[in-house]
Amino acid sequence: MDVVTRADISAAARRIGPYVRRTPVIDLEAGAFGTEARLILKLELLQHGGSFKARGAFNRILSADVPPAGVIAASGGNHAIAVAYAAQRLGHRAEIFVPTACPPVKVALLHHWGAEVTRVGAVYAEAFAACQTRAETTGALLVHAYNQPEVVAGQGMVGWEFAAQSPELDTVVVAVGGGGLIAGVAAWYAGAARVIGVEPERSPALTRALEAGEPVNVEVGGVAVDSLGASRAGDLAFAIARQHVDRMVLVTDEQIVSAQRALWETARVAAEPGGATALAAILAGAYRPAAGERVGILVCGGNGDPRQLV
Amino acid sequence: MDVVTRADISAAARRIGPYVRRTPVIDLEAGAFGTEARLILKLELLQHGGSFKARGAFNRILSADVPPAGVIAASGGNHAIAVAYAAQRLGHRAEIFVPTACPPVKVALLHHWGAEVTRVGAVYAEAFAACQTRAETTGALLVHAYNQPEVVAGQGMVGWEFAAQSPELDTVVVAVGGGGLIAGVAAWYAGAARVIGVEPERSPALTRALEAGEPVNVEVGGVAVDSLGASRAGDLAFAIARQHVDRMVLVTDEQIVSAQRALWETARVAAEPGGATALAAILAGAYRPAAGERVGILVCGGNGDPRQLV
Repeated sequence: MDVVTRADISAAARRIGPYVRRTPVIDLEAGAFGTEARLILKLELLQHGGSFKARGAFNRILSADVPPAGVIAASGGNHAIAVAYAAQRLGHRAEIFVPTACPPVKVALLHHWGAEVTRVGAVYAEAFAACQTRAETTGALLVHAYNQPEVVAGQGMVGWEFAAQSPELDTVVVAVGGGGLIAGVAAWYAGAARVIGVEPERSPALTRALEAGEPVNVEVGGVAVDSLGASRAGDLAFAIARQHVDRMVLVTDEQIVSAQRALWETARVAAEPGGATALAAILAGAYRPAAGERVGILVCGGNGDPRQLV
Repeated sequence: MDVVTRADISAAARRIGPYVRRTPVIDLEAGAFGTEARLILKLELLQHGGSFKARGAFNRILSADVPPAGVIAASGGNHAIAVAYAAQRLGHRAEIFVPTACPPVKVALLHHWGAEVTRVGAVYAEAFAACQTRAETTGALLVHAYNQPEVVAGQGMVGWEFAAQSPELDTVVVAVGGGGLIAGVAAWYAGAARVIGVEPERSPALTRALEAGEPVNVEVGGVAVDSLGASRAGDLAFAIARQHVDRMVLVTDEQIVSAQRALWETARVAAEPGGATALAAILAGAYRPAAGERVGILVCGGNGDPRQLV
């Protein structure tokens, strides 16, 4: 039985539709980026809070009774911004734990949206541990960055929306951190398109989980660590990926940065490293589409430092 | 009689369709940027060459017999990039004249697309004079930055496309340099939507032309001078604007920079100053839409320095 169903995703889309943006897609011309496939970019970096994370955050919060203590979350940055944004929009307090590596641009956004911010731990997993302890004290509603059914169903709306905008996709390529986005997208497509997951070589949580037959701890690092640096894939992502993800591929930091610059140069899309990671798999040949294959690429976040684009 | 007709624009759209991108639009939520209007952004900065200029350049070149000397153009930057791109794509030589104020990022793109570049003059008008002299010597096809019917008809495809993507617009807001874009857009809408032109206070060529009853020379300067700094509105733009542009409004450099940052912060759209000028008119109250008015905003260029976004 599916842990997150297409019906869950459709329900999430109805629930959160008034609160999130329908992000645009652009069909690139034949030959774009030197590939013989047809690339279709979904510009999810234009979402509220600069990444897809708003969808899961709204769905989790709107599916629950939020106590007076409000909501609480830990995140490498983008989920934190989304929770802070959603909480302010819905009138709840938000307490957020981020690792010390969280870029200043993301911390500034958290303060902008009125969240209380605690910087703790070197990576997401350590910030999450502190968050969990705190949640037990305050009773606030925990909004997990990827491993809750409501969060996965909310992210699945990206697939639901992309399928409506570009019904003829053969393949959808998705960057993976803890796995919430790919889980939602793969649960929506459920085989109707080939779903390819892309991880940085230095943050390979879902790749290693699928190899091991269960989620395992991995070392994380690299240029996209603030958005993709989960030390362990979520149980939900693991279960869904095993069933509905065609394969995982890995890319290097250099390939990610190169894709980020290519996106800027070719289409004036200002992705953060994690947001350019799906495209990196195509440009680097980690996934080689056939000539004419219609490949959807999720450009999933734009909360980087634009000074690094040139 | 119209100098550029809707039929000219439809023909241009068919002619250049295979060569340009259908740029996406995003419907922003009620309350976005604090306005009670509904804003719909057309992300024309995702066009080839980073601005709408590719459309006019392709239409002019594809409408003519190009001599062995190739094509020649003068431009503050974006038109130059578009001509260089189109010429390379179509297999023609390109010789380009830019003022010395042309930003390095734009000059680099010209070289990237294989153009011969001459930097001359303080502003566009001086670069154009040098270009015209050179064209008489070589016999190359002159691709004007705004004052040729084929160029205006090509830019008009932006209106043709926007009208198809967002059929219910009440108003379309367009930044104005020499007037090629607004002329094409206004010629397409021809009263079907209210067309508002926006100029920097420091580069008011079309505003002053309409006040004077004919194109007049103006001083140009300011943060958007490289894209909007035409010293004199085109005759075509003047004639079309008098008939089909509802009104012109002016914005300050500070309002342009503020709109540029707001676009980045709110939607991760990395416009150059000229690309944010249309939005600046809304944010600054230079044009005040009614509550619920559906206002299309052309984000017409992204060839700025992303380091200035933060």
